[in-house]
Amino acid sequence: MAQAATQAAQTAQATIGDSEFDRDTAVTLREEGVYDAELSAGWTIIHAVNGGYLLAMLGRALGEALPHADPFSVSAHYLTASVPGPAVIRTQAVRTGRTLSTGQASLFQYAEDGTEVERIRVLATYGDLDALTEDIRTSAKPPAIPPREHCLGPSDGPAPIPGSSAITERLDIKLDPATIGWAVGRPSGKGEMRGWFGLADGRDADPLSLLLTVDALPPTSFELGLKGWTPTIELTTHIRCRPAPGPLRVSITTRNLAGGFLEEDADVWDSADRLVAQSRQLARAPRS
Amino acid sequence: MAQAATQAAQTAQATIGDSEFDRDTAVTLREEGVYDAELSAGWTIIHAVNGGYLLAMLGRALGEALPHADPFSVSAHYLTASVPGPAVIRTQAVRTGRTLSTGQASLFQYAEDGTEVERIRVLATYGDLDALTEDIRTSAKPPAIPPREHCLGPSDGPAPIPGSSAITERLDIKLDPATIGWAVGRPSGKGEMRGWFGLADGRDADPLSLLLTVDALPPTSFELGLKGWTPTIELTTHIRCRPAPGPLRVSITTRNLAGGFLEEDADVWDSADRLVAQSRQLARAPRS
Repeated sequence: MAQAATQAAQTAQATIGDSEFDRDTAVTLREEGVYDAELSAGWTIIHAVNGGYLLAMLGRALGEALPHADPFSVSAHYLTASVPGPAVIRTQAVRTGRTLSTGQASLFQYAEDGTEVERIRVLATYGDLDALTEDIRTSAKPPAIPPREHCLGPSDGPAPIPGSSAITERLDIKLDPATIGWAVGRPSGKGEMRGWFGLADGRDADPLSLLLTVDALPPTSFELGLKGWTPTIELTTHIRCRPAPGPLRVSITTRNLAGGFLEEDADVWDSADRLVAQSRQLARAPRS
Repeated sequence: MAQAATQAAQTAQATIGDSEFDRDTAVTLREEGVYDAELSAGWTIIHAVNGGYLLAMLGRALGEALPHADPFSVSAHYLTASVPGPAVIRTQAVRTGRTLSTGQASLFQYAEDGTEVERIRVLATYGDLDALTEDIRTSAKPPAIPPREHCLGPSDGPAPIPGSSAITERLDIKLDPATIGWAVGRPSGKGEMRGWFGLADGRDADPLSLLLTVDALPPTSFELGLKGWTPTIELTTHIRCRPAPGPLRVSITTRNLAGGFLEEDADVWDSADRLVAQSRQLARAPRS
């Protein structure tokens, strides 16, 4: 049923502003700087709401609250695990400049007694991506990922993403076979995860959906032979360019698994071969 | 005179807790969560106070305000340029956990009318580095830097660091000759800067001084053939390990200079070949 709905949505391709992602990240102004939101159960992994989805929602609230619309650098510290249901986002304009503005946002949910519990706090600098210079001297190269039709998604094998998760129906991820050994019990031992990324309903990428993209692939820890939860402690994302329409390529690398923590660096490339987003997170490594 | 003082300090080697760095990053409790500080003119580049020095001071205040002492992940957004003189740091404990605590800190200075002007805002997660597991599976390799005696410092040539800056007297930086072409008008065109790092008075590194180290080398933009100021917009640092005594090696890389902005990734290695700190910043590229 969900798959049929997805296919129907794909036929009438969703657009930026009119898609599942846009509806599920909607925020409603309650009073100046304060937004009500509903965390959708559609973006959960097992029972936890995906951190990138939450980041996109916070990014959307800040884009409404600040005079500049596009996230340039978003630093998020994850405090407690979010659950589907109502939430409130409180924003603050920290500094408003001519080309850049800095703001802060916190997402709260409600305890049984009605107390607000903070889930994530974000510090972010916003600007106007369309005002950037045309000077591009990127020396990084797009990741060597096989063509999309040679990459593998959830329908191509025995539960490559462990634990049935609602978010897999909303994402169109095809992983490089070279980084999917973990799914068949043969992790490569390398801290690498690569793949093609899209939204299942065909909506193209924009700066807000890139905040989802950087935290959407399985963790590199799977390929390092570790199983279980890899909770994000801190995630900073730089959005460097408005992405061109079409599928994205995502490459994630871990070089320093030590002391029970690891970093994950994500690069996101668009169909025009532009490095559109770079992120780094610090996460707790699974225990085994 | 300053050099003579530095040499005297080197003879009676400074220690963690009793050094120029410790004295100049001192914060004094004014009331709960609020600290008075004095930004020293000794850590300026031309007229601007170094961003890493400010970060270390904020990190120190947070280490006093939070139940955990060691910075694990510190995200800083730079708002306005700091100047030597009095400052106040206002901290807030965001979440206090068993193994990690998250806090926020802002550094303010005073306008002529006495109004507080915010310079930097920081969101940070703290923990206990000595409680980390011994499990080390770092795949990154220390940078290939020539021995220290083959690297070059300010005394080895005609003003390798342009503009006489007070901070150069407090740091003991020796750059890899392969990344110093900019100093003689022949930048390599590669976004790389590497070198040995120490404090001039011989104080060993600790987690707080690592916050200084990640932003202390000349910017990679010099080797990319760009001259002038490369102001930091956002800088996030992960401290992954308490550094061993002895000199540090720092490697900085830029892969995406585009649209008038660039990222700088810094890796800091200690004398025991541990990757002790990783940072990434978003900075504005010089115009020419």
